[in-house]
Amino acid sequence: MGADFTVFKGSKNGDIVEAKGHRNPGPTEVIVKISHCGVCGTDEHYRHNDQGLGHEGVGTIVEVGSMVETLSDFKVGDRVGMSWLHKVCGHCDACLSGNQNQCVSKTEFGTANQDQGCFGTALAWDISTLFKIPEEIESEYAGPLMCGGATVWSPLYDHGLKPGARVGVLGVGGLGHLAIQFAAKMGMEVVVFSGTESKKQQAIELGASEFYVAKSPDSLKDVEKIDAILVTASVLPDMDIYLPVLARGAMIFPLTVSTENLKLSPLNLIVQTLRVIGCATAPTASIRAMLRFAAKQGVKPIIEKFPMTLDGINEAMTKLNEGKVRYRGVLVAPQ
Amino acid sequence: MGADFTVFKGSKNGDIVEAKGHRNPGPTEVIVKISHCGVCGTDEHYRHNDQGLGHEGVGTIVEVGSMVETLSDFKVGDRVGMSWLHKVCGHCDACLSGNQNQCVSKTEFGTANQDQGCFGTALAWDISTLFKIPEEIESEYAGPLMCGGATVWSPLYDHGLKPGARVGVLGVGGLGHLAIQFAAKMGMEVVVFSGTESKKQQAIELGASEFYVAKSPDSLKDVEKIDAILVTASVLPDMDIYLPVLARGAMIFPLTVSTENLKLSPLNLIVQTLRVIGCATAPTASIRAMLRFAAKQGVKPIIEKFPMTLDGINEAMTKLNEGKVRYRGVLVAPQ
Repeated sequence: MGADFTVFKGSKNGDIVEAKGHRNPGPTEVIVKISHCGVCGTDEHYRHNDQGLGHEGVGTIVEVGSMVETLSDFKVGDRVGMSWLHKVCGHCDACLSGNQNQCVSKTEFGTANQDQGCFGTALAWDISTLFKIPEEIESEYAGPLMCGGATVWSPLYDHGLKPGARVGVLGVGGLGHLAIQFAAKMGMEVVVFSGTESKKQQAIELGASEFYVAKSPDSLKDVEKIDAILVTASVLPDMDIYLPVLARGAMIFPLTVSTENLKLSPLNLIVQTLRVIGCATAPTASIRAMLRFAAKQGVKPIIEKFPMTLDGINEAMTKLNEGKVRYRGVLVAPQ
Repeated sequence: MGADFTVFKGSKNGDIVEAKGHRNPGPTEVIVKISHCGVCGTDEHYRHNDQGLGHEGVGTIVEVGSMVETLSDFKVGDRVGMSWLHKVCGHCDACLSGNQNQCVSKTEFGTANQDQGCFGTALAWDISTLFKIPEEIESEYAGPLMCGGATVWSPLYDHGLKPGARVGVLGVGGLGHLAIQFAAKMGMEVVVFSGTESKKQQAIELGASEFYVAKSPDSLKDVEKIDAILVTASVLPDMDIYLPVLARGAMIFPLTVSTENLKLSPLNLIVQTLRVIGCATAPTASIRAMLRFAAKQGVKPIIEKFPMTLDGINEAMTKLNEGKVRYRGVLVAPQ
């Protein structure tokens, strides 16, 4: 059987193009009919590549490969989400130590080098990186959790932070508005930093305990020190502003992909015993824990919907580039 | 009683100057008659300050404060070493969690803001950062362990690395030559990177399992990936050379104090899930473990001796600046 599918891809000149294809499921793959997909800043990075876009996809299993029933409890009709990685190997040291997001062997990025993507109608996906969506979470809200959610969840969940910790969130956007909710519901003190007052009310409603406008190096000097900071702003911040508010031993998580060098010196790191930690979404068990937590605690992205069409994608990505999406765009497939 | 002492201090114009003083021990302090002191790159950073220099001091207790006997087993005649910090509080969250090197309250740096220092004849030192020197370690070898040793020990001992790990050591100098010994004797594979072949034989003798001359971004691409890298070179390396050899999840320890920004981007950190970790020497129990390990396993700095005099200090620091010390200068007090 398999699936005929339509996919929206990047191209050399940056135009989004529509393409067709057919995929049969491999032994450990399922065919997912896509209902929704979140739009992530990383899609913008890939729009100049000839590859399928979209890596926050959600949909329904319509066919399973020959080994799926033996290896898992996935079945036709399950509502599932797809993470950043299309596949992990399960056999390398990273996978076997619970760090599947560091899999080095046979890993396939969700959209990289592929003719398929979650901006589309259907695709084949390996069960090693497939996630059941809890029934409490509507599909349109599940998409943004698959990449954006996992990206902010992992720093909070996988790196030793505990309830009661003071966690800074720099930027209130697609990532930040989820980080605030997760951290608040984990019992952390959420300290939000933003460039202006404009998102203060929203941040407080999402669970922030404190909100500061960060401007000059002196602007934060009286803020009680924080144990970690999640940098979700689209440009790298001037760290001189934030260093005075970081506790000794604090963790810095740069979550937005940027090719600029960090504005931090060894002196900064050594004197304050800081750690800068790169996370690539989250390990598999951690993503499962995130989905359950979001379901039970009511963590819910604030979304703006666009149709899963060429026009819809272009509109969503334009708005994302202009910084105008509040707070995550979600493409909705035609019924 | 107390002690009259001579101390060698920095000064505004960078000249080392000799000064005199008197200190009575506080209740939790001892008076140490200094026999040796290592010369560290950080002393160079302080030579333009009006403060005592030297923070790798070793000597003998000649007097104890009123509470010392109650609180500890330090006694007159003990051979002791002094770490970077003159005092930690014992009561802040960091101290109480075993991270005394992150003490935020009442901490006093060994030489900062003080009229005394380990380049001198005697000083008062708090027992919270005082260490007994195991009898296997001669005093002249103990000095360099107090700062340089602790600085390379902590990345290897306190951050989850295990025997069998592949550990990179960038630079064979005062820090690097100790890192190679410690890591090798911990059962790690020690992979040394240097700018030239000149120190290859020495590195192998110290315990390196592999030695590479790192030049261009391609020069290391066939090296088996490493789990951590200790950057001990005096200038920040071009990380493009080292990224291909770092395993996913690898730790980068910038150990040399530098005010230059790191040559790493969030993209580098995220894609390879790297962590950059600032260490300020080591927690107290970790330093004790290091001294015992060095004693039992025979880790021994390679030293060059200079007299603890104005001329001797000037000569040692000049040679250090020229990169000519093999591998750690030690000042020796007149008998």
